Amino acid sequence: MKQETAEQWKLFLDLLRKISSYQEAVSLMHWDLRTGAPRKGAEARSETIGLLSTEAFKLQTSPEMGQYLSYLNHDTVLGELDATGRRLVELVQEEYDRSVKIPPEKYQEYVELTAHAETLWADFKENNDFAGFEPYLTRIVELTQEFIDYWGPKDTRYDTLLDMYEPDLTVEKLDQVFGQFRDRIVPLVDAITSSPNKPEAPFLNQLYDKGQQEKIGLFLLEQIGYDFEAGRLDETVHPFEITLNQGDVRITTHYLQDDPTSSMFSTLHEGGHALYEQNVSPELAGTPLSQGTSMGIHESQSRFWENIIGRSQAFWTRYYGELQQHFPEQLKDVTAEQFYRAANRVENSLIRTEADELTYNLHIIIRYEIEKMIFNEGLPISELPKVWNEKYKAYLGLTPPNDGLGVLQDVHWSGGSFGYFPSYALGNMYAAQITNTLRKELPQFDGFVEEGNFAPIKEWLTENIYKHGKSLKPAEIIMNITGEPLNPDYLAAYLEEKFKAIYGV
Amino acid sequence: MKQETAEQWKLFLDLLRKISSYQEAVSLMHWDLRTGAPRKGAEARSETIGLLSTEAFKLQTSPEMGQYLSYLNHDTVLGELDATGRRLVELVQEEYDRSVKIPPEKYQEYVELTAHAETLWADFKENNDFAGFEPYLTRIVELTQEFIDYWGPKDTRYDTLLDMYEPDLTVEKLDQVFGQFRDRIVPLVDAITSSPNKPEAPFLNQLYDKGQQEKIGLFLLEQIGYDFEAGRLDETVHPFEITLNQGDVRITTHYLQDDPTSSMFSTLHEGGHALYEQNVSPELAGTPLSQGTSMGIHESQSRFWENIIGRSQAFWTRYYGELQQHFPEQLKDVTAEQFYRAANRVENSLIRTEADELTYNLHIIIRYEIEKMIFNEGLPISELPKVWNEKYKAYLGLTPPNDGLGVLQDVHWSGGSFGYFPSYALGNMYAAQITNTLRKELPQFDGFVEEGNFAPIKEWLTENIYKHGKSLKPAEIIMNITGEPLNPDYLAAYLEEKFKAIYGV
Repeated sequence: MKQETAEQWKLFLDLLRKISSYQEAVSLMHWDLRTGAPRKGAEARSETIGLLSTEAFKLQTSPEMGQYLSYLNHDTVLGELDATGRRLVELVQEEYDRSVKIPPEKYQEYVELTAHAETLWADFKENNDFAGFEPYLTRIVELTQEFIDYWGPKDTRYDTLLDMYEPDLTVEKLDQVFGQFRDRIVPLVDAITSSPNKPEAPFLNQLYDKGQQEKIGLFLLEQIGYDFEAGRLDETVHPFEITLNQGDVRITTHYLQDDPTSSMFSTLHEGGHALYEQNVSPELAGTPLSQGTSMGIHESQSRFWENIIGRSQAFWTRYYGELQQHFPEQLKDVTAEQFYRAANRVENSLIRTEADELTYNLHIIIRYEIEKMIFNEGLPISELPKVWNEKYKAYLGLTPPNDGLGVLQDVHWSGGSFGYFPSYALGNMYAAQITNTLRKELPQFDGFVEEGNFAPIKEWLTENIYKHGKSLKPAEIIMNITGEPLNPDYLAAYLEEKFKAIYGV
Repeated sequence: MKQETAEQWKLFLDLLRKISSYQEAVSLMHWDLRTGAPRKGAEARSETIGLLSTEAFKLQTSPEMGQYLSYLNHDTVLGELDATGRRLVELVQEEYDRSVKIPPEKYQEYVELTAHAETLWADFKENNDFAGFEPYLTRIVELTQEFIDYWGPKDTRYDTLLDMYEPDLTVEKLDQVFGQFRDRIVPLVDAITSSPNKPEAPFLNQLYDKGQQEKIGLFLLEQIGYDFEAGRLDETVHPFEITLNQGDVRITTHYLQDDPTSSMFSTLHEGGHALYEQNVSPELAGTPLSQGTSMGIHESQSRFWENIIGRSQAFWTRYYGELQQHFPEQLKDVTAEQFYRAANRVENSLIRTEADELTYNLHIIIRYEIEKMIFNEGLPISELPKVWNEKYKAYLGLTPPNDGLGVLQDVHWSGGSFGYFPSYALGNMYAAQITNTLRKELPQFDGFVEEGNFAPIKEWLTENIYKHGKSLKPAEIIMNITGEPLNPDYLAAYLEEKFKAIYGV
């Protein structure tokens, strides 16, 4: 590397490190707001989050950043960098181009508003108060619409939002992928619905001590290889994973007192996100490459550990005895097989996060369609509860009794995360496609799971996905691993095989 | 206010608000490091704390700040402000003058180093590893010495440090106050030592469940008026109070499994600090006036709630029954009177934070003398354990068996807090002097305590101390309340009365 390039490169990395400091502080403030910050401090806190996010934003769009990029982002200079360096420049340039288009005062308003709305959301949900939430959501959508104008809409306005979470994803592609998947899955759901051989959950509706649920959750996290010296588990209304720095990757879960599976699977889910973040190559620390490559690939990992591992027969062959030891009274008459079947009951339900593997995707399609309506067709926010309830009736045959169990159930919109939901379904698809290759390369896969020996699986995922962070794009990762682009048939085939066996259809 | 003044004033307040945002973020990161941040994230976190503290420092010393101050800090303009406004300008000017003298890179080194050293300190203490701690402490002292040079030493170099925590306090004054106090107290300690009528603590050395200790601590905090909607209680090695914003004033405590009094009194102590911060006038929010006026006055409030209230006979007349209900087995044969006497045992001991009201001040005098030796006589850091142990032998007749119970016991030096320790003794003195007036103005004082009716006491303290924040100086507060300057005789008289009764001397 030439001396001038070396100097510019160092300044560039220092600036990125400084930006990541702001992000760490802001993330910690968010984590804290959700895990136990006192109510009366929340308003000042939101203002503080807004101020510091704005400072980070100013650095990302600063003349210095523009200057480093304009030096580094030239063919001759890029030739002096390695592939990771080139990817870093490309990624920062993309973010820079996106950010410079937003006026800082708009950005600050957006950040303060979403921080505030996220805090208030739990109360609105609790009180089924959509009317209270509406003005916040309306303003968040207005600002997001303005941002789309600043960025320039793609094929459709909503495409602009999709692309932020899953690079190069479009409405056109998603309509096709969701359609292809739906056509294969609907007959399966129908067959299951009319099967006489339904799993039952005779053990539910008893009291499951929260402390014991927490213990089994901590134990399972340890088993899959979550590093507690680089993270911690807390309780929140809505479980999440948040990365403060590479050595501090936190997760949260929630506990239902009459159903221990809810906390276990949400813990494994967030644990999967955390395994990804904990195993990004340390060389990428302090740069934007040091995180999962896209929301879809990220979700493939949470789904892999939650469903493909956690809801498998092999997993409960290994761990059901442990679970029984934590709840000897409640589970004394329940076999491992009964438990496995119960953990895989298919049932149309109101709550996305509690949905089974199969119908889950319908919850996503509903949100996808509503978001498209908001951004591409100008659906007024006041109509969301009506549209939401109609779609739940049409797709799942259910009508939410109140907005807390309906349109207010997810935190995402209060945080301005539009275009995010499709990642969950993509995650399921990526996970099945990746697992198809993983099983070929590690033929002892089921045996490893039955032994609780997750190290080889975690290593394979680290080598192929985790360590790369954002230095490989999602499409590259899928192509490198599986030799083909995203293909929803793997998920359909996985679901068919699993649920036909369980339901005997 | 003239229009130009109004504009400058608004810009000035906006800049102060921004600085307070950085401080909130940094405080939260410190809180988090101490309450449960994972080990592997601590190094990156320290760097982040350093970076953001440096940004705050740059704002405090920015050309904009210099410009606002040079506009506002003129007699004609000051005349347009109210008394609080004038005090704010004065205070910010002092901080500005102090800060501009430190080169930013020195400041950043200092902040990163102390954040890092604070994190490592717990391990060094645990392992009695002074040798491991020494290089950190040496560098912290070196940097502090450099800072003294930048600021310009006062009468002595150590005076410069004292003044930071207690404005206008000097070695000369402190030598006199500590001397006067010691002369009156030594005969009391001697009398007590030879008294046959010593309190005993027959209830100790049993197991006291931590969960129950936490419950009684939370209960007592609620009783004295700590607002849990504007704070929270956590567990740490070394208890502390930290203010994130006016609606978020957090405290921590620690639990000894064989002694419930330790957590109760440290909880009341930190609760006292928190009552102060929670009750500063909301009008001062977002400015440096929005906090306790000095470390000494702050400590007077923690000591007031811990000792003058919490270790009084009236308090245990009201609360001993409650305590017994939490530990019915352990306390079944102990009377309220026995408990009160036990909570006021005077005993020479090794650990400052566990010391009784009387000998506590000797622990402070030891630290005061050592800090004077470091900064005024150049005592090498490597000799600290030797000097420490000699002074404990001389003043308290005890030799620490290891450095964890000796020179490594306090977190303060790892955080660079030199000149802070004397505040603890000043706090005791202020508290006794203030209480002397309080009892005259609220003659039902003991009755209120016996009823657990702390509202009138908290209101009196709010009116006279808390609400003013830093808008009144410590000397003004003491003079306004008591009509005279700091006088150690009130503390001496309080201790004589209390301990003569307990020891029958």
